[in-house]
Amino acid sequence: MKAEIIAVGSELLTPDRLDTNSLYITGRLNRLGISVERKTVVGDEHKQLSDAFRESLSRADLVIATGGLGPTEDDLTREALSETLRRKLAINHEVLHGIEARFRRMGRPMAERNARQAMVPEGASVLQNQNGTAPGLWIESDGHIVILLPGPPHELKGIFAEQVEPRLARLAGGMRLHARELRTVGVPESDLDERIAPIYKRYGDVQTTILAGMGEIQIHLRTWSKDGDAAEQMLSELVGYITQALGESIFTVSGQSMEEIVAAELTRNRATIAVAESCTGGLLAERLTRIPGSSSYFLGGVVCYSNEMKTAWADVPMALIEARGAVSPEVAQALATGIRLRTGAALGIGITGIAGPGGGTPEKPVGLVHIALADAAGCTERAARFPGDRERIRWFASQTALDMVRRHFLHITDTKPARPGAAQG
Amino acid sequence: MKAEIIAVGSELLTPDRLDTNSLYITGRLNRLGISVERKTVVGDEHKQLSDAFRESLSRADLVIATGGLGPTEDDLTREALSETLRRKLAINHEVLHGIEARFRRMGRPMAERNARQAMVPEGASVLQNQNGTAPGLWIESDGHIVILLPGPPHELKGIFAEQVEPRLARLAGGMRLHARELRTVGVPESDLDERIAPIYKRYGDVQTTILAGMGEIQIHLRTWSKDGDAAEQMLSELVGYITQALGESIFTVSGQSMEEIVAAELTRNRATIAVAESCTGGLLAERLTRIPGSSSYFLGGVVCYSNEMKTAWADVPMALIEARGAVSPEVAQALATGIRLRTGAALGIGITGIAGPGGGTPEKPVGLVHIALADAAGCTERAARFPGDRERIRWFASQTALDMVRRHFLHITDTKPARPGAAQG
Repeated sequence: MKAEIIAVGSELLTPDRLDTNSLYITGRLNRLGISVERKTVVGDEHKQLSDAFRESLSRADLVIATGGLGPTEDDLTREALSETLRRKLAINHEVLHGIEARFRRMGRPMAERNARQAMVPEGASVLQNQNGTAPGLWIESDGHIVILLPGPPHELKGIFAEQVEPRLARLAGGMRLHARELRTVGVPESDLDERIAPIYKRYGDVQTTILAGMGEIQIHLRTWSKDGDAAEQMLSELVGYITQALGESIFTVSGQSMEEIVAAELTRNRATIAVAESCTGGLLAERLTRIPGSSSYFLGGVVCYSNEMKTAWADVPMALIEARGAVSPEVAQALATGIRLRTGAALGIGITGIAGPGGGTPEKPVGLVHIALADAAGCTERAARFPGDRERIRWFASQTALDMVRRHFLHITDTKPARPGAAQG
Repeated sequence: MKAEIIAVGSELLTPDRLDTNSLYITGRLNRLGISVERKTVVGDEHKQLSDAFRESLSRADLVIATGGLGPTEDDLTREALSETLRRKLAINHEVLHGIEARFRRMGRPMAERNARQAMVPEGASVLQNQNGTAPGLWIESDGHIVILLPGPPHELKGIFAEQVEPRLARLAGGMRLHARELRTVGVPESDLDERIAPIYKRYGDVQTTILAGMGEIQIHLRTWSKDGDAAEQMLSELVGYITQALGESIFTVSGQSMEEIVAAELTRNRATIAVAESCTGGLLAERLTRIPGSSSYFLGGVVCYSNEMKTAWADVPMALIEARGAVSPEVAQALATGIRLRTGAALGIGITGIAGPGGGTPEKPVGLVHIALADAAGCTERAARFPGDRERIRWFASQTALDMVRRHFLHITDTKPARPGAAQG
């Protein structure tokens, strides 16, 4: 089945707003084996709208339009579609009573204009909206299906999940998406593709998409089948081969974020952590504490821009800073060791570097960052020169620090006493 | 002049990618008084593409297509347009030499397939690409203009700014956009519109758009004119009335971020700041240090989740925490005062609260946050109950803290010794 999406709204034709509803809809349609062939954005104008409906209906089996179902005179989606399909629009009294009841529950009188939202084209089925006044509509015409949904995302998603998806699933005849999402860190995109293209190309039934993000690359594997077990088995096999090729640069095979993975490792290993940051300015602490329940492993963090604070909060010797400079491997290690001892954490991280745009020198250029990880056995340190602007440099530095924590747990060996539930990676 | 934008690329029809180039293009076109009437996304398929070109040309004066100019067989934009316009495609030797020279500079042989990128439709002018191999193309046909641009944003922007914009400006005949962007904090959207709608409705020539963001509302004012002075005067007058209506909830009239405004106030007042955060986990320090040069006012920050760290790093008396609880106005004030004294900063901020999803109680529910600001004269404190999930609660808390710093400087009075360059707001 081929679908098109029409997003309605003049605000979507300004420099400030994108149609993001279509991403959600595309994801849900893809799960049912339905592909999206075209997306159109049109303003709140009758002729533009009816043209768009007519064109999409000439090409697609399924047309989903979002927005333009509000109570004001600008909201013309219902009218334009009725005209295109030559269906009469009439008040649906059940819908009207529902809208009136909603206003009563909120203790407000229903404005006259809200009655517009109860107008339904002949032959349409009404898709109830639990989160707003405008219902969705499902209309069949000449073997095509048109679905109108309100623009506010929580209203649209509620209607789609509860009422559109089950009906489309019946039409799709049991076809289902099976998917995996791998994420990697530390391998450039071109290298990565060179290593895994010979593998995924052997799996013609699996659609492979490689997306580069900030400090990580995602590998999306998707296949559609009525035979779920076979599809899952094929994906597991493919994931196995890709994992062999990329090794520990893969940090998840199930679409988890780096923060989630690090949180899971800390929790599994019953380890605690503390951080002393300079150039990342709190970003590492912020990412570690994004995860609910992080207070069980995150003992604390300090943001020490000045040399005084590096000494006061993480016991970095002033003499060391003077001898090596604040941006140096030695100071990164002293920050990591100092914050670890201060807080009694199992792991300490220290970061010092030059996020720019100012402050760089030929020896210590913008983008140079030293990151150290300390545990009871000692300290490891990495130096990197990250490209890009201040925001990117700070992000890459925090990503590298989180990745060092992840790799630390991969390398825990049997020399440490085994603990119940500890991951042996 | 009316424009349409066609974004080409099958990846733009997946759940993972949006066409963001159209926002940039729309913004630049709007500056010249050119409106965008429709946006279309199509995949890399010959028929889909030529249909899209034909339809857009039947409606718009100007059609801008992005993407599909690469060297592979999937890249069909040139071919589809040539067919639609019935123009022959031929190698342009100047373009070909340029591509060959580019490869020589990179020390790599030019692959055969890259010659495709030198194919130019009859009668087209070539728009040189400083940042990549595919040139842009400008084609006029029956009074319409079609512009093809490569998809990578930095290539597209370079060509647009250097070559497309000057040519379009000549056609637009001196019409220019004049704009203001106000941002407010602390006023709900419906209240805000009720207060300012009677004002902006008097200015029919100014297009007013209200956009709600995370913890702030933006008011975009835009007008087009050949008479720049008159337009600027009108906008200044309108901004003046809106400012009267909304008062100090407006934090910028020129589109600056809250972080930039706070950084400017700290710098102007030669003040320093330090923070002690619990539930925001480093987010406030991270936002304060996003701004280049923040080391001149940001003395340091601590993230103290545990009671021990609140005591160790910000001198919060353990007895106070036991008596009032870690989430209390008293502990927020002790954090603010403690971190201020510890670091010697002019201002100290303390934040403590419950970001959720766990940890709430009937007396201290999820979303309850206490924020305190300390200076030499004492301490002010605000309690708020923020809605939403963990991410939103943390964001709102950091936004409120930054806003308290901003308002602090608005209220500096003459009782303090005047310093050169100090703002008297």
